[in-house]
Order: sequence, then C-alpha cells, then structure tokens
Amino acid sequence: MTDDIRQMKRALALARRGIGKTSPNPAVGCVIVKDGVIVGTGWHRKAGTSHAEIHALEMAGESARGADVFVTLEPCCHTGKTPPCSQALIRAGVRRVVAGMSDPNPRVSGGGLAELETAGIQVVCGVLEKECRDLNRPFIKQVTTGMPHVTYKCAMTLDGKIATVSGASRWISCQESRTLVHRMRARMDAIMVGVDTIIADDPQLTVRHVRGRNPLRVVVDTRLRTPESVRVLGDGNAVNTLIATAETNPRVHLRYQNQGATILVCDQENGRVSMKDLMFKLGKRGVQSILLEGGGRLAGSMLEQGLIDEFVFFLAPKILGSDGFSPFSLVGRTSMEQASRLNIIKVSRSGIDIVVHARSEAPCSPA
Amino acid sequence: MTDDIRQMKRALALARRGIGKTSPNPAVGCVIVKDGVIVGTGWHRKAGTSHAEIHALEMAGESARGADVFVTLEPCCHTGKTPPCSQALIRAGVRRVVAGMSDPNPRVSGGGLAELETAGIQVVCGVLEKECRDLNRPFIKQVTTGMPHVTYKCAMTLDGKIATVSGASRWISCQESRTLVHRMRARMDAIMVGVDTIIADDPQLTVRHVRGRNPLRVVVDTRLRTPESVRVLGDGNAVNTLIATAETNPRVHLRYQNQGATILVCDQENGRVSMKDLMFKLGKRGVQSILLEGGGRLAGSMLEQGLIDEFVFFLAPKILGSDGFSPFSLVGRTSMEQASRLNIIKVSRSGIDIVVHARSEAPCSPA
Repeated sequence: MTDDIRQMKRALALARRGIGKTSPNPAVGCVIVKDGVIVGTGWHRKAGTSHAEIHALEMAGESARGADVFVTLEPCCHTGKTPPCSQALIRAGVRRVVAGMSDPNPRVSGGGLAELETAGIQVVCGVLEKECRDLNRPFIKQVTTGMPHVTYKCAMTLDGKIATVSGASRWISCQESRTLVHRMRARMDAIMVGVDTIIADDPQLTVRHVRGRNPLRVVVDTRLRTPESVRVLGDGNAVNTLIATAETNPRVHLRYQNQGATILVCDQENGRVSMKDLMFKLGKRGVQSILLEGGGRLAGSMLEQGLIDEFVFFLAPKILGSDGFSPFSLVGRTSMEQASRLNIIKVSRSGIDIVVHARSEAPCSPA
Repeated sequence: MTDDIRQMKRALALARRGIGKTSPNPAVGCVIVKDGVIVGTGWHRKAGTSHAEIHALEMAGESARGADVFVTLEPCCHTGKTPPCSQALIRAGVRRVVAGMSDPNPRVSGGGLAELETAGIQVVCGVLEKECRDLNRPFIKQVTTGMPHVTYKCAMTLDGKIATVSGASRWISCQESRTLVHRMRARMDAIMVGVDTIIADDPQLTVRHVRGRNPLRVVVDTRLRTPESVRVLGDGNAVNTLIATAETNPRVHLRYQNQGATILVCDQENGRVSMKDLMFKLGKRGVQSILLEGGGRLAGSMLEQGLIDEFVFFLAPKILGSDGFSPFSLVGRTSMEQASRLNIIKVSRSGIDIVVHARSEAPCSPA
C-alpha cells in the first residue's frame, strides 16, 4: 500500500504537467510498474490527443503485460475523440489498475473500472483521492453540476478597498502580483467581468507578461451598455469576447456581433442577468474554469448565490480610507453569523503584496 | 569582529527576557567575556532595579578586570534610581566595552561611552545596531520625540470590515487571536480607544486569558460622553482609567474623578481632542507604548496625522459585505498616490486567522 501511494505521487506529478492545458479534459498522469521498475509514464497533454494511459502503454510496450498501472483518474470506457483506455489496458494484459478517483461524471462513474474487473484485472480506487480531486476541481465541478468553477481574484488595500471613492484602481497591487494574475488567466477557460469594470477601466483581459493562450472574455452586461469602442471589442480579437445580456433585441445584438463578439441571452433575475443561468450556459459551452475579475457588484451577487468556489486576494500594503470600493458589493448583513465563511488554503507573498488563497467553507461543488 | 557579533547576539537574547517588563526603562542585555569565556551575564528586569551591566559585573566578580563587556545599549552615566553603570564598569577595570547603540536621548547620547573612553577603556559602538534598536522601539520613540509608540491593532474580515452595518463586531477574530491580543496588551503601557468604542462594546480593556499586568486604559472622549456605568469605570479598577477630553468644566470632571478615573484635559483641534497634544501629554506621564484598539474614527485620525507606528491586523476568513465599518474612517483619498504606504514586517497565522504585522513606511520615529 505504501508503494501504491509512492507510485500515485509519481502519477500526480506527471498529471500536474498538463494542468491548465487539457480543458475540457481533466489533467491525468499515469505510471506503469513491472517487477518494481517503472516501465511507462505518461500524462494527458491536450484535449483531442492521447490520454495519459495510452502514452504510458506506448512507452511500456510488451512490458505492460502483467504490470501494475497507476492512474490519477479512472480510465475512460467510452469512445470520445480517442478510443477508450479501458480496452487498451485490457489488450495490453496489465495485471492491476490503481486509480486515484473514479470518473466524477455520475452517469459513467465506475464504468471503466468495472470493465477492467470483468476482464480479470485487479482494481483499486481512491489512492490519494483528495490530491487527485484537487488536480481537477474545475473539471469535476462542471461535470457534476453543469456549472464552471469560479475563482474570484481581486487586488485590495490592507483596509479592504479595491478602488478609491472616484473609482481609481491602477495600481493597487505590485508588478509581481499583476504578472501572477496573467499566469492565472492563462490557465482559465474564461475571464469574467461586469460591464461597470469595462466602462471604468477598459481592460484588455488578455494574457500578457507570460506565455499562454487567451481565455474567453465574458462581459456581464444586462442592458448592453458596453461601448463599442472598448478594447475587448476593438483589438481585432472581439471574436474571443462573449457578452452575456438580458437584452433580447437582435438589432442591438448586431452592433456587437458585427465586431465579431458573441451575444449570449440569459434569463433575468431581479432585473439583472441571472448568474445561475449564465453559469449553466457557459458550462454547456465547455467552460470549466472562470476567473472572475470584478467588479464588486458582480462579485457580491455571485457570492450571495454561492457561485464562487475559490478566492485569490492580493493584499497591497496600503491604506485608502473608508470611502473606497469594497471587494463585495452586498449589504444587509447585520450580525456576524451572516458573514460568509471561507477556508484559507494558502498565504504567500508576491513582491510587496500578501496573497491569500481561500475557498468557500460551504462548497459550491462536491469536489 | 565576528566574535563581537556573536557576543552581542547573546546580549540581545538576554535583553529580550526583559521586553515588556522594564518600562519606562529600555530592555537591555549584557555579556562579559574574559579570555574567550563568558564570566558574567545580566539583563534589566524591572525599572528601579539594577541595570544589565550591574548584574553581569556582580556575576563576573574579580574576573571582570581586563574583560570585554557587550551591552545592547550604551551604559548610563547619570544617577537615576540606581548609580551610573559607566562608573561601575570603570571601577571593575574592564578592558573594552562594545555597545549595540548609543543612548537615544539626544541630550546624553554618547556621554556614557565618552566617560569610559576617558578612563582608558576601549569603546566600540553600533554592533548589531538595528537589532538593538528593534528591541526598544517604544523607549526610543518616546525619548527622541516625547510621544509614545503607537500600535494599531484591529480584527477585520477578509473584505476589510471591523463591524457590521449595525455595529456588531463580536467576534470577528478567533479565540486564539483574541488571546494574542491579551498578550499584546500585557506588554503595553496603555490601551487606547475612542468613546464610541466604549459606548458600542463596553469593553473591559484588561489583560485576561494570559498573565500580565493591566496597562493604563485611555479613553478619548472630547465631550465626556462616557456613560458612568461602563466597565472601564465600574470594575473597582477605575483608578487605572484615564479619560482624555476637551471638556474643561471641573464639575463634569468630578463625575468621573469620584469613581477614581483620571481626567486629562487636552487641546482641541477641529473640535476634537488634539491627538498630538494627547500623545505628548501621555509621553510626559511616562507612557512609551500604546495599543490603539479602535474605533475606526480614532484610527483614521491617528493615521492621517502620522501618529501610528505599527499595525497588527487580524484577518478573519469571513466576508461581511460593503456596508460594514472600515478599519480607518477617513475620506477623500481619490487617487492611489494618496494611499498610506506600509511595510509588511511579518505575516503569520493565529488559529484560522491571518496576522499581518506592518509599520508605517514614513516612520513616525527615527527608530
């Protein structure tokens, strides 16, 4: 068993190489061990290409016969863009398969392992399960709830202000922290902001300072107030911008569609875009991870509805006073018991800032 | 020289044993070394008792003759409650005195070392000076500026709120953090709050949960609105409470004086107690260190006037929303350049909270 954990740790390390690159697939790592010797390793690199098990089997070749396979996620048993891994493992004649966790999709969970068992292969599931789940929180959340995994990132002063009373917010955090945000963006399927942030800051919402692909830019804009001249529409890359709105008039849509942007009409709730409806619609489009970058009103409404999974707060060593903007625009919590509770996962430093990484105590997802 | 540093580190470790117990004297440590062997050690334990050098000389006895003396602060050359240490060192026939820093009092600085030098003793000053200064920031601030060293402590949610919109603030931080505050109190000469905090929370402002003496309780109350029934006046310990006011009517004072409290009449500034005047008056009374415990209005005014030296923020993993109270009640900072800048000294955890220890970037004191 100790050896199972050791090998699963190797598989986890391999899986981590794929994090942020495999969406909408999960990051998966695989190690094949024969007579105590590692004969094959692999990890999933990109959606549409071979799964981790296939890479490892290819490396192992004939040595896979009678070997033990350690894989961070239950092998698939369905034909997607690639053939099912369960069949490949059976054909290779492996002796035993140790999986970190079962397939989170409730409709197929356990199917891959059952196929292996039926073929006479020994099966173990749940080794380092927590670590394996942590690898793929966005994937698990979307597969189990239909909604993307949302991380709210904001930079604030030590007295909890994201902008001055007049809306100035450049720059609260230091250069190192801003670069870190670009690294976070590069690992997300989408970045989301409210139209007020677009109007106030005219951000580009692209990945710069680091290498990586640009995520989808989602602007929440109930009444389509986004000016046509803003940068998310004007940099020749508007095709990568989606505006979520409650405005149903196709003539108004055209203004943005002509620039290349996508219009997504959502249900209304209290006169604003229903964030739940938007989350489900984005989930259906394959968006698994969202970096929510503000503003405070959108964050407040997302928090109130339990739609934020993780929080990354950059705390800058500055004091702005009491009339600035708060990171969550929401009112009416009069007693301490009404406070949202978070679990702090990690506290670190970035340049002169403090970075606090937290999760909702009441999880939005079973992960 | 490396050996000087090693011995000064020993003296620093000894000095630290006295921190928080020696006020209004500084914490001082002393090591006497003869032929590479430590023959005497001492630290100052309490005002009115022997200084560190005297303890170390007593332990060394005749071995002090021709020895090297390492002391974190320049030996005194004036007769206070105890005779001057410079003369004791000369009488003992030491060969060399290494001091961490000179006496911060500009009127006597260097006098002790000069006396030693005149007596033919080798003198070195400034070994590990920064560390030696850090030991005694409150002492140094009060001696050099006449004002006490102020630490603002506050507990806030991760979104920067110290109370809900209705004023509820119990409890923001966890039990461990609250105990830590009592430990901080026990090391301070005084605790200071505004009258609004007295009215809202009716705190005791005593040291509980840990051992230690109760500091002076200072209530800032421009118009003497403190109810006579509050706990800082009613626990049989009102003699330990000082009310700083702009109210000059002695008949109104009597209400509080009859309960045992002290009334300190201060200058007015913009219709409120002048905090600078109060600081000087407290400094004159021998108060070197103050723990400012709120509320936000007092903290805002102290920050604006550059009267806060250090900050200890307890960040609780909670979100309260935008209508709660901010840690610094001050308005009108419209651009990011107007933010007060802090230097973060230390980030640690206390129970489920994060503790951020910071200092003003523009120092209030030369220390």
